[in-house]
Amino acid sequence: MSSQPKAPKTIILGNRPLRDYLLESIVSLNRESDVIEILGRGRHIYRAVNLYNMLSSRLGDRISIKNVEIGSMLIRNRRVSYIKITIQRI
Amino acid sequence: MSSQPKAPKTIILGNRPLRDYLLESIVSLNRESDVIEILGRGRHIYRAVNLYNMLSSRLGDRISIKNVEIGSMLIRNRRVSYIKITIQRI
Repeated sequence: MSSQPKAPKTIILGNRPLRDYLLESIVSLNRESDVIEILGRGRHIYRAVNLYNMLSSRLGDRISIKNVEIGSMLIRNRRVSYIKITIQRI
Repeated sequence: MSSQPKAPKTIILGNRPLRDYLLESIVSLNRESDVIEILGRGRHIYRAVNLYNMLSSRLGDRISIKNVEIGSMLIRNRRVSYIKITIQRI
């Protein structure tokens, strides 16, 4: 295994059940990445925070929030609010 | 007028139209507080981010984000996700 820092993995929330993204997040933190970014846009902002809380209740103090970014981005000429939660493994 | 630091004002999002909270935020930042906290719980998390984006597009670089906190709190024995966006006037 290489010891160089791994790129953060971005998990973009869509319409799949939240447990799918939960599983994806846990697998990423265990295998691929020391840092993951959870991106929720529009209505998925709420789900992004829920996902973080689910991760936090399962992984406890093995993870911590590195950054929370909010703002808006243009998607197909429409301005959409987003949240990007950066989580690191400790 | 007193020059001592004013306490942050907390604006808790409910079911009123977002423009009501926008007005309340702008008035607070102009008159009462150098810092406001926007608190959105559950489904209102999305609206809290929208409110920040509305404020940002109106006040531009006269405000900046001081902190974004996410987590969960107990309300009537139920665990509810929340976001708390702390905004300061520059």
